[in-house]
Amino acid sequence: MPPHFFVSLPAPSLSLLPPPSTTISLSLSSLSPPPPPTNRGRTTTVRSSMEDRRRSRVSLFPPLPHRDLMLDVISAVDSRLSPHLLPSSVPSDVLSFRNPTGSSLGSLDIRRGSPASSVDFMLESWLHCRLPTGALDITTLLAFLNGSTDAPHLMMELIQASPTALVLLLDLLPRKDLPLHQHYLDDFYHRTQLDRQRQQLESLPQVRPYRSPSLYVRSIFSPTAVAVAVDCGEGAESVMEDIVRARLGSVAREYVRVWSDECACSTKQMEASETAHMRRRDGLIKAKAIEIDLSANLPRLFGPDVSNRVVAEIQKAFGEQR
Amino acid sequence: MPPHFFVSLPAPSLSLLPPPSTTISLSLSSLSPPPPPTNRGRTTTVRSSMEDRRRSRVSLFPPLPHRDLMLDVISAVDSRLSPHLLPSSVPSDVLSFRNPTGSSLGSLDIRRGSPASSVDFMLESWLHCRLPTGALDITTLLAFLNGSTDAPHLMMELIQASPTALVLLLDLLPRKDLPLHQHYLDDFYHRTQLDRQRQQLESLPQVRPYRSPSLYVRSIFSPTAVAVAVDCGEGAESVMEDIVRARLGSVAREYVRVWSDECACSTKQMEASETAHMRRRDGLIKAKAIEIDLSANLPRLFGPDVSNRVVAEIQKAFGEQR
Repeated sequence: MPPHFFVSLPAPSLSLLPPPSTTISLSLSSLSPPPPPTNRGRTTTVRSSMEDRRRSRVSLFPPLPHRDLMLDVISAVDSRLSPHLLPSSVPSDVLSFRNPTGSSLGSLDIRRGSPASSVDFMLESWLHCRLPTGALDITTLLAFLNGSTDAPHLMMELIQASPTALVLLLDLLPRKDLPLHQHYLDDFYHRTQLDRQRQQLESLPQVRPYRSPSLYVRSIFSPTAVAVAVDCGEGAESVMEDIVRARLGSVAREYVRVWSDECACSTKQMEASETAHMRRRDGLIKAKAIEIDLSANLPRLFGPDVSNRVVAEIQKAFGEQR
Repeated sequence: MPPHFFVSLPAPSLSLLPPPSTTISLSLSSLSPPPPPTNRGRTTTVRSSMEDRRRSRVSLFPPLPHRDLMLDVISAVDSRLSPHLLPSSVPSDVLSFRNPTGSSLGSLDIRRGSPASSVDFMLESWLHCRLPTGALDITTLLAFLNGSTDAPHLMMELIQASPTALVLLLDLLPRKDLPLHQHYLDDFYHRTQLDRQRQQLESLPQVRPYRSPSLYVRSIFSPTAVAVAVDCGEGAESVMEDIVRARLGSVAREYVRVWSDECACSTKQMEASETAHMRRRDGLIKAKAIEIDLSANLPRLFGPDVSNRVVAEIQKAFGEQR
């Protein structure tokens, strides 16, 4: 099974990847207005340069419907967090990697939060694998917060097994045991009306609920998690493009907006024991993500050397929460 | 909205109740073999007499497809727990009650666990409401355990809004924060393979996942909770009967078997702080169940006097966990 953070994947279809002309342009600009050049000129330049490098790296991946959506979501989160992130220390052979035969291609970038921020890390991962059964593309965004807040983490993952079939996982991962913390449920999930987004998505005939085969993965999701499989049927590439652009894009924008407004830079005074408990919970979730997905699957797809390098970078980010 | 423990209900359909001939016979006898009369004669007689009284009370409710399923499930759980239950102390005007006009009918029975047992209480509730929009029948079974074990509680609820449409909720409610307790997840949910049952049910074309509108209710469910809406379409009463008997019955039997074998009479040594934490969690779930459902809805359906009596009995059982 291929690597992925939060989902055991559907069997990849036999469909070939779409031609390079199949691109979708999305805009999340409302989420990430460029700062005025008068007082943030240098920040803007640095960010533009980073953004250019990201787009350049990602251009190596097939232009599937989900690629531009993920790019825009990641850029929006990056814009929001950028003042609170340290420069990436990921080496170039992890920023871009491939297996010896060139059939699998990957890119991982991680930026740690600055010492005074609420951000633990922001991770983006792109994987493209040509398997005997077909091609598979998985893109993951994780934006985890540290012990200075109990606000939820952001996670989004898109797994595309053919040009007309994908799985979307999108959630604000709770950091508390919700039955014990009703105010937390009210603040982050009820009051923000995230469930409306999920409902609207699931009302589409091409969309059905998706359940991860991992019970552990299911157990970390919130009650408003989007976990859906979209299947448009053979030959319906344009329908899939429309759904990704108009529907998935709209839902992802709203989740990112809520997370940016309510969680990203929040702080909360907590008892030391409460913080320690929450960190332990965060730590277990991160360890399990590595165990379920990466350690088991990356070596098979990329060989031990590449795999070790990639997992080491993730472990570094996952293991050093402040 | 009508009363119910764990679900906000679908709008009742305009369908009338089916004629009294619409009955289904189910057997859960494999779950509850009668004990040999040679050494348990008196127990058997007491149980038979209680069973007769239950069936007599329930015969007042419309013979919808779900009635006999719930009766057999409740009898099976009762048989398993019976040696560990105290006699019911519920007064007769709560065992059977109705509103002044007779359009709503209810029955509630609660038996507390004996002092040395792991059982907190077993609750069964039957409600039939003729609303302006149609009839609605809700049957609930709760078997909660006490602080001598951390094994999950059992809950089952069937809500039938027409002879061809119902909602089933069935779960082993976890008593731990699962992301922190992977062994608990493995022991009660993974190893027991409960998810296969859910998968099989959801593969039927008449069945789709059901999400409670209450985020709190969703948050207390396990990752293998069965939460489904069954809709067979107008006029398909016999299809519904088959599904209830063969499919829902089979899944319910397996959940009850797992709960009976793995949870019902288990004990676990725990630190005092761990037990206290778990009791607080149990207490919040029970308080919320009363708040969401009963306190808000029973008075509208049965008037304040009946409602107060019924809620008082439930609060008594919910508030006295050992």
